[in-house]
Amino acid sequence: MLEVEAKFRADLSEVRGRLLKLGAVLLEKKTEIDVYYQHPCRDFAETDEALRVRYVDGAAEVTYKGPRLAASAKTRLELSASAEGEVDSILTALGFNKVASIKKTREYYSYRSFTISLDRVEGLGDFVEIEAVASSPDVVKSIEDEIAELAERLGLRERVESTYLELFLQRAR
Amino acid sequence: MLEVEAKFRADLSEVRGRLLKLGAVLLEKKTEIDVYYQHPCRDFAETDEALRVRYVDGAAEVTYKGPRLAASAKTRLELSASAEGEVDSILTALGFNKVASIKKTREYYSYRSFTISLDRVEGLGDFVEIEAVASSPDVVKSIEDEIAELAERLGLRERVESTYLELFLQRAR
Repeated sequence: MLEVEAKFRADLSEVRGRLLKLGAVLLEKKTEIDVYYQHPCRDFAETDEALRVRYVDGAAEVTYKGPRLAASAKTRLELSASAEGEVDSILTALGFNKVASIKKTREYYSYRSFTISLDRVEGLGDFVEIEAVASSPDVVKSIEDEIAELAERLGLRERVESTYLELFLQRAR
Repeated sequence: MLEVEAKFRADLSEVRGRLLKLGAVLLEKKTEIDVYYQHPCRDFAETDEALRVRYVDGAAEVTYKGPRLAASAKTRLELSASAEGEVDSILTALGFNKVASIKKTREYYSYRSFTISLDRVEGLGDFVEIEAVASSPDVVKSIEDEIAELAERLGLRERVESTYLELFLQRAR
């Protein structure tokens, strides 16, 4: 399964209104805190990897993201484990250093085959993500077109290619 | 809380008989698989650390053991997290290499303030561990004496100072 997604800077209240008018359904609202770590002896920025611990309602999810598998594709290996206990202390003891802690409130909406997320990211601003799943690489292009069309209807114009982690690190510099 | 413990090579059926005659109670029997990892850029043998994933009935427990805090004491920092998911794959992707996988069947008995474990360790043999908890460093010596006395009554004479990991690595050499 391939995820196809696009992210935009946006005025959330405006987009929320247009979404509801289209008939989109609010799925859930939650606060996620993503803590990113640097490897003790590898430069993740260079190797295009990431280690993230996501906290939602006290539960922790540890995710390793491998390098992108092809230059153009967003496809990458993702490995996850749910964890409970002294996760951060173990990582710190092993030499992993926190590089970023990104807190965001997300409202997830469902519309047709899309998931739309209205994100308020602390210190970075407001964003909308549109996401859909491609069953095979052949349909990625047509899904990208559908996403562009939906973005147009939602009045989303300011596309952002950077990840939240990249935006966070750019701001910190 | 400090754990005081002693380990002996033993004939398990003989010790089991003596334990039951003393009135010890079988608490549980379980199979534990301990997988130890080497750090990608630190020599754990040198730093006196360990990273272990213990699998019991499908559940995984990740434990980091810090260096012993004093030369004589067995006291060390232990950090743990229960985990579910792709734990081994994440560790491997981060450069942690498996150095040992130790499978043991343990029978836990309770007798007075002691926990006695009858361990059948694959490839290493049979062992008995006696363990008690010291509420403060002052009582460690007297607990050690009580353990020695119980060991005597159980016919345990061949004391083993090495950890199972050390025994495993010695055998592998």
